[in-house]
Amino acid sequence: MLRVGINGYGTIGKRVADAVRAQPDMEVAGVAKVSPDYVALGAAEAEYPLYAVDEDRTDGFHEAGIDLAGTVDDLVADSDIVVDATPSGIGAQNRPLYERHDTPALFQGGEDATIAEVSFNARANYDEATDADYVRVVSCNTTGLSRLVSPIHEDYGIEKVRTTLVRRGGDPDQTGRGPINDALPDPVSIPSHHGPDVQTVFPELDIDTIGLKVPTTMMHVHAVNITLEEAPDDVSEIRDRLRGEDRLLMIPDYAGIDGAGTLKDLALDAGRPRGDIWENCIWEESITIEGRDLYCMQAIHQESDVVPENIDAIRSVTGLLDGPESRALTNETLGIGLSRLDNAEERAVDRQTAD
Amino acid sequence: MLRVGINGYGTIGKRVADAVRAQPDMEVAGVAKVSPDYVALGAAEAEYPLYAVDEDRTDGFHEAGIDLAGTVDDLVADSDIVVDATPSGIGAQNRPLYERHDTPALFQGGEDATIAEVSFNARANYDEATDADYVRVVSCNTTGLSRLVSPIHEDYGIEKVRTTLVRRGGDPDQTGRGPINDALPDPVSIPSHHGPDVQTVFPELDIDTIGLKVPTTMMHVHAVNITLEEAPDDVSEIRDRLRGEDRLLMIPDYAGIDGAGTLKDLALDAGRPRGDIWENCIWEESITIEGRDLYCMQAIHQESDVVPENIDAIRSVTGLLDGPESRALTNETLGIGLSRLDNAEERAVDRQTAD
Repeated sequence: MLRVGINGYGTIGKRVADAVRAQPDMEVAGVAKVSPDYVALGAAEAEYPLYAVDEDRTDGFHEAGIDLAGTVDDLVADSDIVVDATPSGIGAQNRPLYERHDTPALFQGGEDATIAEVSFNARANYDEATDADYVRVVSCNTTGLSRLVSPIHEDYGIEKVRTTLVRRGGDPDQTGRGPINDALPDPVSIPSHHGPDVQTVFPELDIDTIGLKVPTTMMHVHAVNITLEEAPDDVSEIRDRLRGEDRLLMIPDYAGIDGAGTLKDLALDAGRPRGDIWENCIWEESITIEGRDLYCMQAIHQESDVVPENIDAIRSVTGLLDGPESRALTNETLGIGLSRLDNAEERAVDRQTAD
Repeated sequence: MLRVGINGYGTIGKRVADAVRAQPDMEVAGVAKVSPDYVALGAAEAEYPLYAVDEDRTDGFHEAGIDLAGTVDDLVADSDIVVDATPSGIGAQNRPLYERHDTPALFQGGEDATIAEVSFNARANYDEATDADYVRVVSCNTTGLSRLVSPIHEDYGIEKVRTTLVRRGGDPDQTGRGPINDALPDPVSIPSHHGPDVQTVFPELDIDTIGLKVPTTMMHVHAVNITLEEAPDDVSEIRDRLRGEDRLLMIPDYAGIDGAGTLKDLALDAGRPRGDIWENCIWEESITIEGRDLYCMQAIHQESDVVPENIDAIRSVTGLLDGPESRALTNETLGIGLSRLDNAEERAVDRQTAD
């Protein structure tokens, strides 16, 4: 049983911990946290051994009645691999700690690509992380783009990608962030850093991105253009191709899902943990071909789409399973895919055939 | 087994259906819905018999591959009691349908109080609904105020309540509603209708309310003032009194919960269905006494706080259990109360005592 330590128990860390616990081949060695807030209370309730990030900050946990198993140094010593889910930039400060213990580590997409040997996406380059000591799981936006680009690239060839990323201002618990009541060019320089980040996964890909930030907290939305090398005869061919991908969710027009609010409501109705949406959500009606230009819009759940990627990266680094096996196991254990949408589609098709 | 029909399967109806299913003494006869959207797909997935509200609108369900068990008339005929969770004003149009079938019905707080013999809150007036044919479960805001007023009224007497309701603009899926980027006096007339609505539960209570609407979707927030007839010696007495109430959740200061965003994150971390918060959330630090004036702030989850009240109202109308028994069973089956907050508090107290 692989022992996974999680350093940083926030939006991503707490989800990775629960996902690790759901796997048959790994277990949570413990989680490290800075402050004894409600998220720490959740870790205690989940009975994850809790480690303080800093010796100087153990008193707060003590006062809140939370027991500590030790400090983050103890956690790393007791782990076969560490998932670093600390805020952007802190991961780089932590790397010497992992080196000292000779423990492999995953970093998140907020870190600079140079922190690791490989920037990872399970669909695009699973094998590249095998036997690497340090791997960076790319950001939510880069994950979303990589998943979409992969099958298109394989089947049609890509001349160029041009994408506008309309990004949420902060996560639901980040009350203090902006913007409020504005749509900010962010960064104002073009191309934004997202394009080069996709190139850490697809080095040869020609891609430019433009970034904005808006006053929402639920999901990012991408307006995507991909100029194909060779266009299919019919757009339905692309739709079928994308529908066949396990981490792309097609949103049918009749379902009345008009944005992130209804998508989150759908996920909560489905009983998903924390209402998470691990898949790219692509509005089926938006998939359009004009000449060799493919267009679509997709929503990306920034809190959770990298979670299955972290699980797969753990398996790649440690050699537990090959790519297709790992992805299938991760999908099954987390519950990826939403049968109520697929079934309705099938039932409707069956019925039309019967009519 | 009491057969409960649910007419209107939206924000409230889908939650009431799941809550009914969780009870040992009742079952879902079926749910009625207008349109075959993603929420209807959820009903199909949950295997609730689905009834069309309108004969003329069955084609859409057919096209979406959703089977129908009949129309709403069939549902009422097959139910021992109906929970009407249709949009405000539609309940009044439906009452003749329930009368024709001689079927008791619950209406929601969006209906005028005159629709029913009793306006109901489980903590305040459970017994008044027993044997009534038509009962109105008061709105989310009135429910929140009634729960808070009850224990204070019993122990200290209330001279007057003055409350400002800072209300969310719409539910998370109601993308088309306002306001955006404004805080609207709503209604601009004072007192707002909320005070008189609380008086449908507490006829003798002197209460004035002011309503506003802001661009949030997660929860309402109440700024409450209650002038007591007799003030306690120490504010901690009030805190302990409120902490003893099963549907009031005390939010401790150290937990870092600063608003509805973190409250929802907490509920999702706790694995609650749809991240629901059935309890009033009272910031413990806000509970303050100045002379005979008691102040506090509480957040009210508009999507779910009336759900346990509907379950209790079903039992009151049909005489299944008495009030304390019903409330206890509802609390237990839904999972009301958040042990991670209570336990932390107890652990901290234990530890301080030990120190």
